[in-house]
Amino acid sequence: MKLAIYGYGNLGRGVEAAILKSPDMELVGVFTRRDPNTVRTHTGVKVFAADEILAHKSEIDAVVLCGGSATDLPVLTPRLAKDFNVIDSFDTHANIPAHFDAVDAAAKAGGKLSLISCGWDPGMFSLNRLYAGAILPDGKDYTFWGRGVSQGHSDAIRRIPGVLDARQYTVPIPEALDAVRSGKQPELSARQKHLRECYVVAAPDADKAAIETAIKTMPNYFADYDTTVTFISAEEMREKHGALPHGGFVIRTGKTGFSDEHTHRIEYALQLDSNPEFTAGVLVAFARAVGRMAARGRTGCITVFDVAPADLSPLSGEELRRMLL
Amino acid sequence: MKLAIYGYGNLGRGVEAAILKSPDMELVGVFTRRDPNTVRTHTGVKVFAADEILAHKSEIDAVVLCGGSATDLPVLTPRLAKDFNVIDSFDTHANIPAHFDAVDAAAKAGGKLSLISCGWDPGMFSLNRLYAGAILPDGKDYTFWGRGVSQGHSDAIRRIPGVLDARQYTVPIPEALDAVRSGKQPELSARQKHLRECYVVAAPDADKAAIETAIKTMPNYFADYDTTVTFISAEEMREKHGALPHGGFVIRTGKTGFSDEHTHRIEYALQLDSNPEFTAGVLVAFARAVGRMAARGRTGCITVFDVAPADLSPLSGEELRRMLL
Repeated sequence: MKLAIYGYGNLGRGVEAAILKSPDMELVGVFTRRDPNTVRTHTGVKVFAADEILAHKSEIDAVVLCGGSATDLPVLTPRLAKDFNVIDSFDTHANIPAHFDAVDAAAKAGGKLSLISCGWDPGMFSLNRLYAGAILPDGKDYTFWGRGVSQGHSDAIRRIPGVLDARQYTVPIPEALDAVRSGKQPELSARQKHLRECYVVAAPDADKAAIETAIKTMPNYFADYDTTVTFISAEEMREKHGALPHGGFVIRTGKTGFSDEHTHRIEYALQLDSNPEFTAGVLVAFARAVGRMAARGRTGCITVFDVAPADLSPLSGEELRRMLL
Repeated sequence: MKLAIYGYGNLGRGVEAAILKSPDMELVGVFTRRDPNTVRTHTGVKVFAADEILAHKSEIDAVVLCGGSATDLPVLTPRLAKDFNVIDSFDTHANIPAHFDAVDAAAKAGGKLSLISCGWDPGMFSLNRLYAGAILPDGKDYTFWGRGVSQGHSDAIRRIPGVLDARQYTVPIPEALDAVRSGKQPELSARQKHLRECYVVAAPDADKAAIETAIKTMPNYFADYDTTVTFISAEEMREKHGALPHGGFVIRTGKTGFSDEHTHRIEYALQLDSNPEFTAGVLVAFARAVGRMAARGRTGCITVFDVAPADLSPLSGEELRRMLL
C-alpha cells in the first residue's frame, strides 16, 4: 500500500517512522507547504510542494494528513477528500460533526473514502468508550488524561507577556482514579480529576507574580483547576522538558444481574513516551483499513467506529483467528 | 431485535439479565434440553424444549447459544447456524479454526450469519491484542488472567478421588505484571506469570496429603505452576467461594521512532464480579451487531474481529460521533 504524508512536523515525522515498521506499506513522498528544497526527510524519501499533489494522484493509495486541527484540517481534509483517500487526526471534539459532514460530501463527490479524527483521543479512547458502553449499558465512563504535555495549554501560557517558553503537564489525580475504580460512579468536577503543572521560562525583566496570576486565572484553560507554576531556566526546559509524553485512562464501571448485584470494571490505559509517534502508529494502522475498504468500494467519510478491527492488521483473517483470538 | 437463549445455566441467566438492560432487545424465549416444565426463568419468559426451536424460526432474529465448549457447541453451533443467526462463546482456543470452518459452511448453506468465540477471552482480550499489535507492530503482548475462578481447573480437582468440592483461583503474579509494564519485554514462563490457589473440601476419610500431591503434580493444569492447596469445610466453601469473579490484563509494550527511542504501553484490564454476567453483556452487544449485519445481507461465520464497533451500540452513527468520539 502506497501512502503519502501531507505536512512534515512532529506528526509527519512520526508517520514516516511508523511506515518503516510496516513492511506492507510504502511511503511515496512527503508533501509540504514550505519550500521543498528546505525540507530533508529522515529516510531520504522525496519531498514535494503541497500544491503538486494532484499530479501524483495515480501513485497514492491514501494520504495521511499531518496538519493542525485549529486552522489546517478544517480546510485541507475536505479539499483533498475529493481526489484522495485521506485520513486525519482532527481533534476539536465540538466541531467533529461539522467536519464529518464537509468531508463526507467531498469524499462522496469524488468516489473516495476518508477517515477523520483518528489517533488516541479521539481514536482509541473513543473506541474504548464505545465498546465499554455497549457491553455495560448500565454504567458510567470516565476519561483521564496524562501525565502528559498538553500542547494547547502550553501554547496558551506562551502567549502571556513576559513568557519565553512554557510546558504544561496534565496530571490525573490519584484519589479521583481510585474513586472511579471503586465502582461508586462518583460525580467529579474538573478540579477533582486533573491537576495542571506548568513550567515557565520568564524573560529576565518579567513580573513573575503577574505571570503566575495570569496563568492561574485564565478561563477555560486553568481557572477551574488546581494549577502549579514553576519558573525554570531555558537550559532546564531544554534538558528536562524536551519530550512529548502523554497517556491516560478510559474507565467504565457498570452493574449487571437481576438486582444490579454485580459490579464490573473495564479499564484502558495508555502510557506514551511520544504522543506524536503513537498517534502516527494509530494513523498508519487505520490507513491500512482505509486502503482496503476503499478497494472494496466504500466511499464517503468514516471514523474509527466504522472500521472492522481485522482491517487494521497485516495478518489474514485465518491468521488472526489462529494467533490472536 | 428478538433474541432467543439456548441453554439456561449461569451464562443463559446472564444473557436474560443483560437483555433487561437493553431496551432495543426482546427475549422471545429460552430453549432447554431439560424438561421445559422443570425450568423457571427469572423474568417469567417462556421456556421451550430445545428440539422445538425450528418451529419458532420466524420469531427469532438471533439465537444466543449458552452451552459448553467441550461437547455442546462443537455440535450445536454448526447445527443451528443453517437456520438461525447465532452467536456463541466457544473458547477452546486450539479448536477455533475447525469450529469456524464448520459454522461457516453451515451458515453459508442457510444464508445466515454466525459469530463465534465471543466473550472476554476469546473476545474483548482478542480485540485488544489485535488493536495493540496493529498500532505498535514492533512490540510484544502479554495476557494475564485473574484473580478469578477457573472453572476448568476447579473441575479437574473435583475429579480427584476423595475431593467433594473445589475452587481454583488463577492469580497473576505482581512482579511479572511490573516487569511487563516496564517495557523490557521479558520472557516469562507459565510459573512466573500466574499462581494457582486451590480451595478443597475433602471427604472425611480422604488422604489429604495424597490429594495435595495429585493436584500439584497434575500435568497441564498445575505441574507447571506454583500451586497452593488449602483444605476448607463445605460451609466455608459455600460462604466464601460461591461467586464467580474473574478478570485479567492484556498489556502490549512497543517501540517507535527512527532509533526505537520511544517506548509505549497499552493496557486493557477487566475486573469482574461475575464472569458469566459480563460474558453475557458482550454476547448481547455482539448479537445486536449480528442482527444488523445479517439484515445487510452478510452471511457465513465471523468473529469479533469482523464487527465494526458502531454496530455494537444502540446509538446512531451521528450520536456516536457527537457523544463518544
